[in-house]
Order: sequence, then structure tokens, then C-alpha cells
Amino acid sequence: MKKIILVICDGLGDRPSANLNGKTPLQAARKPNIDRLASASMLGLIYTISPGVTPGSDTSHLSLLGYDPKRYYTGRGPLEAIGAGLKLREGDIAFRCNFATVDHDGIVIDRRAGRIKEPDTGKLASIISEMRIDGHTVFFKESTEHRCVLVVRGEGLGANVTDTDPGVEGKGILKASGRDAVSQRTAEIVNTFTDMAMKKLAEADLNRERERKGLKPANAILARGAGEYPKIEPFFEKRGMRMGGIVAEGLIVGICRVLGAEVSVPAGFTAGMDMDVSGVAKEAERMLSSVDFLLIHIKPTDVAGHDGNAKGKMEVLERIDDMIGRIAEIEGTVLALTGDHSTPVSAREHTCDPVPLLIHSRGLRSDGISSFDEISCSRGSLSGLRGLDITPLLMGYADRNEKDGA
Amino acid sequence: MKKIILVICDGLGDRPSANLNGKTPLQAARKPNIDRLASASMLGLIYTISPGVTPGSDTSHLSLLGYDPKRYYTGRGPLEAIGAGLKLREGDIAFRCNFATVDHDGIVIDRRAGRIKEPDTGKLASIISEMRIDGHTVFFKESTEHRCVLVVRGEGLGANVTDTDPGVEGKGILKASGRDAVSQRTAEIVNTFTDMAMKKLAEADLNRERERKGLKPANAILARGAGEYPKIEPFFEKRGMRMGGIVAEGLIVGICRVLGAEVSVPAGFTAGMDMDVSGVAKEAERMLSSVDFLLIHIKPTDVAGHDGNAKGKMEVLERIDDMIGRIAEIEGTVLALTGDHSTPVSAREHTCDPVPLLIHSRGLRSDGISSFDEISCSRGSLSGLRGLDITPLLMGYADRNEKDGA
Repeated sequence: MKKIILVICDGLGDRPSANLNGKTPLQAARKPNIDRLASASMLGLIYTISPGVTPGSDTSHLSLLGYDPKRYYTGRGPLEAIGAGLKLREGDIAFRCNFATVDHDGIVIDRRAGRIKEPDTGKLASIISEMRIDGHTVFFKESTEHRCVLVVRGEGLGANVTDTDPGVEGKGILKASGRDAVSQRTAEIVNTFTDMAMKKLAEADLNRERERKGLKPANAILARGAGEYPKIEPFFEKRGMRMGGIVAEGLIVGICRVLGAEVSVPAGFTAGMDMDVSGVAKEAERMLSSVDFLLIHIKPTDVAGHDGNAKGKMEVLERIDDMIGRIAEIEGTVLALTGDHSTPVSAREHTCDPVPLLIHSRGLRSDGISSFDEISCSRGSLSGLRGLDITPLLMGYADRNEKDGA
Repeated sequence: MKKIILVICDGLGDRPSANLNGKTPLQAARKPNIDRLASASMLGLIYTISPGVTPGSDTSHLSLLGYDPKRYYTGRGPLEAIGAGLKLREGDIAFRCNFATVDHDGIVIDRRAGRIKEPDTGKLASIISEMRIDGHTVFFKESTEHRCVLVVRGEGLGANVTDTDPGVEGKGILKASGRDAVSQRTAEIVNTFTDMAMKKLAEADLNRERERKGLKPANAILARGAGEYPKIEPFFEKRGMRMGGIVAEGLIVGICRVLGAEVSVPAGFTAGMDMDVSGVAKEAERMLSSVDFLLIHIKPTDVAGHDGNAKGKMEVLERIDDMIGRIAEIEGTVLALTGDHSTPVSAREHTCDPVPLLIHSRGLRSDGISSFDEISCSRGSLSGLRGLDITPLLMGYADRNEKDGA
């Protein structure tokens, strides 16, 4: 029986890039360790949800981890809230929020409040971290960068609630409304919270200080992505494997926590372009002494994709090459490397393009393809698989499934 | 409209083998007829059940024959019993059994009674072939080699019964127990049979004779794999094709009989390493005058896999090469060659690795791949198909399906 390491590079897949002479960042990157590993691996191009679906990071991670998003996904809000460190209960309704800047007329002039981040977000969040509204409790907490989360707790709540985030700048904050009676109650609580938060944030010393420094004040909260607490069978109960994660991004941390996984963030391992992976291989080895299935999540490939930064995406891939080489040397494991979706630099958005997958373990077949990229992998033996196939397949190759029949 | 020949080599798929310079037995085998056929065929690597599932031979054969094992599989016991020649009815509960040797303290010292076989197994089985226990009837019959089968018939029986086979030597025979009331009744009948059989076998002259010859007596029966009679639509009713089988192994004979197929075993065609295939092509041609769909089952590829015998597996493949060449010359057929699962010699067990598939018929496309093996086939046009796709696909190429729509 072997252990399993699943490395997911967020937004990994790409399209030909004019800045890279028509190559994808994976094709253009110098990645000798990954390509050497590819030569001794099974490869393929897979649909992390299904053909034509443009996956979110949350739904595609659930799928790759063996949880059908159609059944288990209840919105990004609860996953983000759990990732931010809030303890959710059944019946809670959670929203993902932004700190934002509104002008005197209540018009949103910056949906990210000048890309505010820690420690300012934590300080401002502490002012509005818990409120009683209409017999219910509202919890609020900062998440990564300008992001934050809101949870409404109490009896008789619903998640069919529209966003207060107008989605664009130059418009006012929207009134949330519910599509049924319990959701309408939730919407009214969110609207009251939005007003109360705006008053308290307007009075915050920190915001005046930001203005003095020429920074935009974070004087409003925009909420979206309402979702109820998801009922998900923990990974260990479902698969009989203790799960761990080396994950920096709030959303994926939330997924790990929901599944009951232990999460670790080595020093310098961020979800941004400054990500330092030098401690990851060693931490992976340490965690594998107590977990059976380890997820390693690499975020900045997606960040560079959204920024339309082809060279940046290529450079992130070059930066993880040595890490992958070292992880591949850990004995007694099945190693998989893939993406959760494509974020082509030419599209600056998630797209439906399938993503490359590599599976390696000593003694398994190899496809005889010597490069890990979108084009080479299409000829591999794993092509055409879907996200939900991956965890069972890795368990099969790790000798962790039971024979079906005799 | 063409006829269909499906050749299934048991445990065909493999992994790189140190004994064969890193090649799989299929890659290493000299098989000019099969490779010539491959050049003119469609090829692929298929999951006979689904990705990550390690198939049994029974479930994967059902799947390849177009019967979803999730729906139709009720355990190996009934298939093995039908294969051994017992006529089962609805409500019967069947077990696969071993002749075994126990010592004076009732400890199992050989789970296969010194690999006892015919004619001894038939003689001993006749002593305990039918008993009345507690108002029910118990039937017992020898099967291939040390194997035998047990059927309990009567009202109010259940198949949720634990094994009496301890699974390892050095332990006593287990008491069967039922997980519900009707299964508990069945368990008690099995326990009574086990005791009565042990008494009768202890008195058998043949066992004393075996001991005089230095052979282990077959003085106990170990039962496992309880299952109820499967309700399966016969192949002809489901597909409109008369089915035949050239099959030597009891389990697959059982599947053929359950599906209403005519079974033939040419002289010398065994389920062991001594299999002689020289009569198979001629028998295939003869059977195809009366059947539309012919299954040919080659067992020793799996035997060699379980034995870790790479050269032996390679040699079995070389032995069937001429047979395949001759079968391919039968006019008016669609010919498919595949495996039911992988039994890599390095694993000595079934694994989840997909298996190669070849489909040939005059006038169809060919993939331009000139070798039939696990690596070459991965690039073929049939890759990614699943077991349940295969019978409909063969029917399609045999012009035996109806247009879906207009």
C-alpha cells in the first residue's frame, strides 16, 4: 500500500501565447525535473468536471478529490469562511465578501479598497466581527488579501440570497433579497449588517489614517456567493485515508478543513506571486509520516493567468520544477501533478480547456512521452478521464482499493 | 450483418517487467500474427469496469459482455456453481468452496488439500453430493482442480453469510454467521453441512488411500463467496444474438451458462499453463455456424501473472498468436481481442491498470499502430472506453444495432 501526493497547480492549463512564440507557458518553461518525470509517467489531458464546463477552483478541487460538485457544492461562501478560520455549523449561511471603498453618495469606487490586506483587514474586521441582528448572530472575519467572510447563524435561514456586490465599480451597493421566505429573512439581516458595518467602518481610526496616507479607506463590505454549510462526508470516512494539505489559499484551505484534512503552510509558502516553495518537499515528507493522501496546492499559476502574465506563469512553473523533482524522490508514493482548470493568459479567465495530468509511481507503465504540457499530454494514456475518476484511480495505483468481484 | 468473436485473455494487462528488460509480456512476446492484425485494426486501452477499479474476472466479464456488474453481480458462488454443472433456481444460495486438509485439532493445514484434483475430487464429492438439513436440501459438486461448490435450496434463505474459510492456514474453520434472520438460517445449514461433511470425508476410503500414498487427505470443505442466484436476462433476449463460448475455466463457464450460451471445450483446451489451443480456431469456425457471438476465454495469461512468471506469460501469448491469425481469417466476422483486467507479474494480483483492446473487421478503419501492447494501444482510437461499451460497439461494427433516431 502506497501513499498519495496530489499536486494541483491552480489554473495550470493554457493556450498558445503570442508572448511565448505561440507556446503555452508549460511548453515554454524550462522544467527538466518535471519533463524527466513525465518520461517515466502516465500522462493525459483531463476534464476536471466535464467537457465544456468552465470549472471554478472550488468545484474542480472537489471533483479531483472525489466529491461530485453537483452533490456537494453549496457555494463558495461557506468554503471561504471555513478557510478563513470560522467554525461553521449546520444551518449557517455564509458569504464571501470584499472590503470595498464607497464615495459620499454610496457609489462603489473600488471593489477591493485599494487592494487592502493584512494587517489592516484584520484590524477592521475586529470592529465588526460579531453582531446580534434581529435575534440572529452575524460573524465576520478577514480572509486572504482584500477578501473577507460573513456568516449568519440562527433558526430559519436560507441561502437563496442575491449579492450586495454590484460586481462593477460606479454603482451603488445592492440590496440583498431572498428568493423564498427564509432566504428573505437572511437577506434582511445581511442588509442590516451592511448598513451597520458601513457606519462602524466610517468611524474607524484606521480608515482615517489610510486616507491621510493616500490609501483608499475600506468603508464598505460587499457580499456575494451565499451558501449553506455543506454536508460533506469527511475524506477519511469516505476513502479510509488520512488527508493532509500544504495549502495557502483560503478557499482551498476551506475545502481541506471541510474534508477534515490537516493543513500546513511552510514559511514563505503564499498564494501570491511571491510564493516560496523551498520548504514544501521537506514538509511533504514530514506530513506523509501521519497522512496517507497529501494535497499540495500551487496558486500563483492562476494569479499569473488572470493577470495575463505569460512570462510570470512560465516563471512560476520553473520555480516549482525543483520542488517536484524532490517530491518525486519520496519513497513509497503515487505522485500526481495536474491543474484544477485552465486560466489561459490570453483569456485572463477560467476556460473549459482540459488540463494535463501526470501519474507516476515506481513500477507503473509509462507512456513514453517526454514533456509535460497541454499538447504532449493529449497523446497520453490518461486522456479523456474526468475529475471524479482521479482519486479512485490514484487509490487503485496505491493498492488502496478493494477488488470488485473475484 | 456480421458475426462477432470476442477473445478475452484473462489478466492480459501488465506493467514493465525487470525480467523482460523493462517490457511488458505483450511487448516482449513474438506475435507476428497479432501485430499484423493490429496494423489493420482499431486499438485502445480500456477500463473494463471503471478507472481505479480493480476488476475481478467475473465482474469484468459481465461488463465486457454488456451486463453492468453493479446490477447483475451477486457473488462468485452462484457463477462457480453453475459453471460446475449444478442447475440453480431462484432463491438458491451458492458458495464457492475448497477441498482442504485439517489436522486432528481442526486446524487448516492446507487450504487446497495438496492441490487435489480429478478424479479424486469427483469421488469425494459424490459422498456428500446431496443432504437434507433442517428441511432444506444441500447440493455439493466438484469444480476445477481443488475447487468445489455448495448450494443451499429451500424457503427463506439469505446470502448475507460470512465465510467458513479462514483465508489462511494455521487457523480453524470459521463458523458462518448471517447478517439477517434468513441469512442466519443459511449460515446454520452451512455449519451443519461443514460438520457432516467432515465426518463423512474422514471415513472415506479414498482419503486413507491418499494418506498411504503420502498425499494430504481432503477431509474438510471451506466455503466462501455466498451469493444468491443472479437474475440475468439471457444474452439472446437482451441482444438478439445466439451466444457461444470456448471456455475451460469453471467461473467463466458459469457466466456463459447463466447467459444461456452454448459452451464447448476442444480437446486439450484447459484453464492451466498446459492449455493447447490447436483445436480452437477450427472449433470457433464450427460454432459460428450456429451462434452469432462467440466468446473465447484464455486463462493461463492470468495464471502466469499470479505466479509472477513473466516469461511464462509471454510464452502463453506466443502460443495463441497462430490461433488468433487463423481466427482472423474467418470470413464475415468482427474480431475483438482484449483482457478482462491486468494481472501484472510484478504485482501477482489483479490491478486497476487498463487493458489493451483490438477490434478488426474487413473494411473498418485502422489506427496505423503496428503493435498490440499496453503502451502502443494507449494512442489508439478506442482508448478511454469502458467495459460496458464493448458489446454495443462490437454490435455496431457487426451491423447488428438499430439506428438511434432517423
